[in-house]
Amino acid sequence: MPKRIIIDTDPGIDDALAFLLALASPEIKLEALTTTQGNVTLETATRNALAILELAQAGGVPVVAGSVVPLVQPLRASAHVHGQSGVGNAKLPDPKNKPVEQHAVDYLIERVLAEPNELSIFPIGPLTNIAMAIRKEPKLAKAVKELVIMGGAVLEHGNVTPQAEFNIYVDPHAAHIVFHSGIPITLIPLDVTHKCLLKPIHINRLLQVNSPITRFIKSAVETCFAHSKSYGGEGCAMHDPLTLATVIAPELLTLKELYVEVDHSSGVSMGKTFGDFLGTTNKPANMKVALQVRGDEFIEVFIQRMESLAKSIPE
Amino acid sequence: MPKRIIIDTDPGIDDALAFLLALASPEIKLEALTTTQGNVTLETATRNALAILELAQAGGVPVVAGSVVPLVQPLRASAHVHGQSGVGNAKLPDPKNKPVEQHAVDYLIERVLAEPNELSIFPIGPLTNIAMAIRKEPKLAKAVKELVIMGGAVLEHGNVTPQAEFNIYVDPHAAHIVFHSGIPITLIPLDVTHKCLLKPIHINRLLQVNSPITRFIKSAVETCFAHSKSYGGEGCAMHDPLTLATVIAPELLTLKELYVEVDHSSGVSMGKTFGDFLGTTNKPANMKVALQVRGDEFIEVFIQRMESLAKSIPE
Amino acid sequence: MPKRIIIDTDPGIDDALAFLLALASPEIKLEALTTTQGNVTLETATRNALAILELAQAGGVPVVAGSVVPLVQPLRASAHVHGQSGVGNAKLPDPKNKPVEQHAVDYLIERVLAEPNELSIFPIGPLTNIAMAIRKEPKLAKAVKELVIMGGAVLEHGNVTPQAEFNIYVDPHAAHIVFHSGIPITLIPLDVTHKCLLKPIHINRLLQVNSPITRFIKSAVETCFAHSKSYGGEGCAMHDPLTLATVIAPELLTLKELYVEVDHSSGVSMGKTFGDFLGTTNKPANMKVALQVRGDEFIEVFIQRMESLAKSIPE
Amino acid sequence: MPKRIIIDTDPGIDDALAFLLALASPEIKLEALTTTQGNVTLETATRNALAILELAQAGGVPVVAGSVVPLVQPLRASAHVHGQSGVGNAKLPDPKNKPVEQHAVDYLIERVLAEPNELSIFPIGPLTNIAMAIRKEPKLAKAVKELVIMGGAVLEHGNVTPQAEFNIYVDPHAAHIVFHSGIPITLIPLDVTHKCLLKPIHINRLLQVNSPITRFIKSAVETCFAHSKSYGGEGCAMHDPLTLATVIAPELLTLKELYVEVDHSSGVSMGKTFGDFLGTTNKPANMKVALQVRGDEFIEVFIQRMESLAKSIPE
Repeated sequence: MPKRIIIDTDPGIDDALAFLLALASPEIKLEALTTTQGNVTLETATRNALAILELAQAGGVPVVAGSVVPLVQPLRASAHVHGQSGVGNAKLPDPKNKPVEQHAVDYLIERVLAEPNELSIFPIGPLTNIAMAIRKEPKLAKAVKELVIMGGAVLEHGNVTPQAEFNIYVDPHAAHIVFHSGIPITLIPLDVTHKCLLKPIHINRLLQVNSPITRFIKSAVETCFAHSKSYGGEGCAMHDPLTLATVIAPELLTLKELYVEVDHSSGVSMGKTFGDFLGTTNKPANMKVALQVRGDEFIEVFIQRMESLAKSIPE
Repeated sequence: MPKRIIIDTDPGIDDALAFLLALASPEIKLEALTTTQGNVTLETATRNALAILELAQAGGVPVVAGSVVPLVQPLRASAHVHGQSGVGNAKLPDPKNKPVEQHAVDYLIERVLAEPNELSIFPIGPLTNIAMAIRKEPKLAKAVKELVIMGGAVLEHGNVTPQAEFNIYVDPHAAHIVFHSGIPITLIPLDVTHKCLLKPIHINRLLQVNSPITRFIKSAVETCFAHSKSYGGEGCAMHDPLTLATVIAPELLTLKELYVEVDHSSGVSMGKTFGDFLGTTNKPANMKVALQVRGDEFIEVFIQRMESLAKSIPE
Repeated sequence: MPKRIIIDTDPGIDDALAFLLALASPEIKLEALTTTQGNVTLETATRNALAILELAQAGGVPVVAGSVVPLVQPLRASAHVHGQSGVGNAKLPDPKNKPVEQHAVDYLIERVLAEPNELSIFPIGPLTNIAMAIRKEPKLAKAVKELVIMGGAVLEHGNVTPQAEFNIYVDPHAAHIVFHSGIPITLIPLDVTHKCLLKPIHINRLLQVNSPITRFIKSAVETCFAHSKSYGGEGCAMHDPLTLATVIAPELLTLKELYVEVDHSSGVSMGKTFGDFLGTTNKPANMKVALQVRGDEFIEVFIQRMESLAKSIPE
Repeated sequence: MPKRIIIDTDPGIDDALAFLLALASPEIKLEALTTTQGNVTLETATRNALAILELAQAGGVPVVAGSVVPLVQPLRASAHVHGQSGVGNAKLPDPKNKPVEQHAVDYLIERVLAEPNELSIFPIGPLTNIAMAIRKEPKLAKAVKELVIMGGAVLEHGNVTPQAEFNIYVDPHAAHIVFHSGIPITLIPLDVTHKCLLKPIHINRLLQVNSPITRFIKSAVETCFAHSKSYGGEGCAMHDPLTLATVIAPELLTLKELYVEVDHSSGVSMGKTFGDFLGTTNKPANMKVALQVRGDEFIEVFIQRMESLAKSIPE
């Protein structure tokens, strides 16, 4: 039986690719997308989510809009990475569908409580919605099957400050709430996502399938290639798609049980995620953290799934 | 026309007295009580709110339960001040009524959006519910008429740490959200509430009216007297009732427009509220702060209102 | 027998007035001035110290230069308050004397250890020198008779940030070291210095004595008057001279034994001094803090001493 | 010509091994040891320094005692790692020599200013002495040839908290001062020292040379082996000796120019050293950081030098 997941997201180039990967994977049933601010504003995130689903002929998947701003920190955009539209140079048509008329926080609470231990949530943006839902409905924590979170930099340096990864930095207070919620968590940090690089050679291979899907991917990642190159990088890191490896290729990831905390003290380490490797805090592990990945193999899986999705949606 | 108010509360001895004062004041229409953890757990707060309303024959006022824990900080109780029951030595019968079946955050949003600029909220506990409502519904900020908040210590020392006042300390992140929400705010900090002391002599005067109300007040404040004496205090500070002075005796308060911020950085100043008296931050005032009060006169007003309420509810 | 004191100082208008008050007071023997950066650079501070002593015909008092920068914080100047020269509009001739060829930290250590329990230090600038001396020579703490420190704002707001007073803000780490050194401390914070205002009317009175001293005072405080007016103040606060009230008019000050700490955590409360009035930290008092002063009476004492000094140094 | 170095140290097991390595290396001339608290108290550190030099027949190298406590943080010992004596189970005879009668801060200033750009300092304990010297004598920064510091954990986790390495954690304020002093710095953090493990097999090899040196090494590292094993480690990390690799085997280290800062904000990240790998702070590099090492080759160098030293000091 496929794993039933809700993706909480701020699309975002690699968010979009994560949706496509979920839709292309028989091991996964994508139940809904809930949106949040992060890479883009909530409005753009919601519009992008609808449009990408429609592009992939998955307009039936509900999209629900959530938080407009982080819990405590001021709003912060990242147009330099994801382009003004959030999906690089890709042009997405206006979506035909509308988002569900409910706040994502309430939607998550309702869906999860209706089917306890059935639904997994994959947050791939700032954790505002998840934290609000946990705080609004204390029963949520015991009813969510698990969280697979793209976020943090445990032994790796940050990508928005020297120490902090973007998703956690945007809402470190939400991350603190989520990390201490008691929900089973798998964390996919920069330590592994930085090793899963989509490169121009992969795009060329994908373009051999003539499909709006492959053309979208090409246009979307162009900005990311350019941004990556400015930092000496060799490709576009598949941060968000890698969360799905926990379902479709778990053997590629090495997970470690660890106590992980986030610094939300407003100082220079704001948003830093750190793990207690030596047990100096005497606190029990609160998550599994991916610390190693066979990145090239994951990219191969990703490409194959995209090829297969693209073939099913020809011109 | 009386001012229509919702009190957001964690009763709490002086919370209870604030309800009674609101009910005793023709200038005020008490529309609802929303509850939160703080002085007591949410469950106790909600039960106390219902029971106190029934004691005052105001069982028709809706009570709505809200947040179980603060936003980011761990839960913290204060039984040493308010007794295990939250109302000192007073014994309240089990309430007959039940709370409204809705989360206080949603209730506040619904009520306020239904009648924009009509309803004032008087938060007299930690600000968790108000902050959650602001974050969940961005339109709320423009629809609330005003907030009159009991909280903070601006030039006065704290009462839970050297710097922090209890309500703000319990949820400094919520306070930060509320203070920056753009809602018109009047702050009633320890600077003034410490000058409004109910003393044994006042209790004796009240007891001359034979009523469950006066007996409740007597039993409720006994713990507070004892606690206060341990700090060299001379009486029980009427923190929460003083918020209502903004409606029933505004001439007793001296307000100052000020930019006020709260330290939520996790250090020794956590929960400290401070004002920019000299304009060194170049930020515009975000609230009116009560810095002086004619405390004895307020206590006289309070006693008279309690006498009159008590007379209307004889044995 | 007069109290033998060393003033550690960053002159500074009111620092200069403190020297004059010390020299004008038979209850005090001024043993030395040690200088530090703060209101002005170390170089200017040292030059000013020498020149003011010469102006007052006290060129025999040794001047010793100390710290060029604060311990941890970056250097910070305050020319907007004290003028570029540090003494407002006053023109001081180049001093004839030279500072002692020793670092103030070593000078303090040597002098204090040579005569244990004989010398009191009056730090009226940032506490860098004193902290360095304490750290370099652990025996110092038991050999200093006492410290009388101008600094901090305990229940009063700050003068450089909403919370912090200048001397403490410039070097909060030094303040932390000094406050926890075990040396007997009397703190003279803004709470009292703000109530000791020198006003134009006082200057007019002083000018009736024809002396370089009175003319210097007039020129020095002009900048301070202007700066004070911009904040709605009514005069120039005699921050530093008030430390000497502990010797020449102690009856004007109300002191309270208190545990006082400084926030050095780099957040918005950096440099805030706070007192544990309710004993919530369970820590013993580490100083006496002046919380009330009969300010007008102190100003009267100050004026009389200045008149008498001025008369002894006619044109 | 050999590199002339002063080691600033808190011996400490691996500190002791660093002295021996320096003495065994013709590329190095050990000019002095300055001591500080850290692994042990200042008194023990100084005694150990003298005794180890005498053991190695290097009693002519001056030892100078420095700081008794860290700048701002409270004193902290680490007897669980280095044993009560600081040198594990090794028994060192009482030293015959005495330390120089001068404070290490003054000694460092004098030596360095006397021969500008001639002397390199190798701080392998908390940075208190170096920071005090920098603050006391601003000219020092331009006169020191370079600093080679054992300290920090840049991409590696900490060893005393989840984030902080011991030397930096003990005095993060001193580290901040040193890192921003402008002195050329090479940092040898846990990232590399954790890869240089002395193992029981190496001790067995060393013991084939019959010498007080080899017996000392054996007894000293026993505690370290035991401690290391409790964390799942495979040997005793040669933290301090590795600093000397910059002189005797630089080809084994990969250095990266980097802006490195230390968190001294008193929160959960206190003492964390972090590097700005992506240039998000726009600050220029302030040091070279060793991020990779050929650890086994360094251990081989170390063993060979110890064998040769041991042979020169037979029973």
